Amino acid sequence: MEAKRKRTRQNDPEGFRARVLDVAAGLFQAQGYHATAIQDIMQAAGASGGALHHHFPTKKSLALAVVQERVAPAVRETWIEPVRLAQSLGKGVANVFASIVAGLETRGKVVGCPLNNLALELSLSDAEFREAISAVFEEWQAALAQRLGDTRGGARLDRARRMEAAQFIVSVYSGAMTMAKSSQTAAPLSGAAAMLSRWLRDRGFAQ
Amino acid sequence: MEAKRKRTRQNDPEGFRARVLDVAAGLFQAQGYHATAIQDIMQAAGASGGALHHHFPTKKSLALAVVQERVAPAVRETWIEPVRLAQSLGKGVANVFASIVAGLETRGKVVGCPLNNLALELSLSDAEFREAISAVFEEWQAALAQRLGDTRGGARLDRARRMEAAQFIVSVYSGAMTMAKSSQTAAPLSGAAAMLSRWLRDRGFAQ
Repeated sequence: MEAKRKRTRQNDPEGFRARVLDVAAGLFQAQGYHATAIQDIMQAAGASGGALHHHFPTKKSLALAVVQERVAPAVRETWIEPVRLAQSLGKGVANVFASIVAGLETRGKVVGCPLNNLALELSLSDAEFREAISAVFEEWQAALAQRLGDTRGGARLDRARRMEAAQFIVSVYSGAMTMAKSSQTAAPLSGAAAMLSRWLRDRGFAQ
Repeated sequence: MEAKRKRTRQNDPEGFRARVLDVAAGLFQAQGYHATAIQDIMQAAGASGGALHHHFPTKKSLALAVVQERVAPAVRETWIEPVRLAQSLGKGVANVFASIVAGLETRGKVVGCPLNNLALELSLSDAEFREAISAVFEEWQAALAQRLGDTRGGARLDRARRMEAAQFIVSVYSGAMTMAKSSQTAAPLSGAAAMLSRWLRDRGFAQ
């Protein structure tokens, strides 16, 4: 085991680093940053303290890497790309909610949005966490604002108004996910999706 | 000091309990449940371990009391009562957002909504926390649904639809507060308030 680990580390430092990031992202997501000890991560990743320290000198540096290399890509994959590629913003948003709801129902539990979870736990206490987390929210919002510009209602708005509408969409999702996590049911997300679809239609943002 | 503390505890157990709840609510709110050690609470409340243990045998029992006796009343005071007493739902919601924004701007930092913060940190891991937190969300939602029933648009909806609309309002607020905490600015809340006001008007929920 020790030999295997050392070999892995020497031969495949990127693979080792990726495994640690996956494990840490999963633990931070499931139980939070403060509730996760660095020892939990070592154990779950089969990593020695020295190997872990070589890649991530502090727990904070590991968490910042999780935000940038796991949470940001998850937001891109779950939200930004599907909305960008959808036939219309209305369909894109509806599909994103539908696939998140389907995923929650399959898993049978609501772990929540990794960005929201870390945002609430870490934004106040630390400026570097706050900047990393804010950057992901901003990228998400900017992608939605961009897509809003292609819609009938959105084309009439200036960039500031489009950003405000984009932020509203993110807020509805984030808040509904918080309520879904609290109730451990997907219902708040399905409800929010229905209300949001109608809102997008009424404001001319659906297509 | 020790003598004084003992006297306080003996003469005023309710005062002691209230002080511990205030201190714990503040620390959980500012830094989170897991990041707060029971020793931090003892120190900030000037409480001995024995006195604290007498009232709250575990950190969890203390946190459950914080949800029920501090967080729930805060939601009632900030949201439920002002909306119930407002001239119209539209004005009530607008005033709630305005006073929260004003409060954040005065304080110069965004600590976030205590219910959201604890919901995301604790809902997944523990069923008792989840139930306590869900109960607060449900009370909040039911109060808004009740008020929606008095509006032109809401009177036409059945209770399930009113609960869905109420949940949408809570979601928008919760999500905007998450983004406000992430950016440490009140702007996401002001933006959400403007969008929500228009939504209430468009749907006939403003009055």
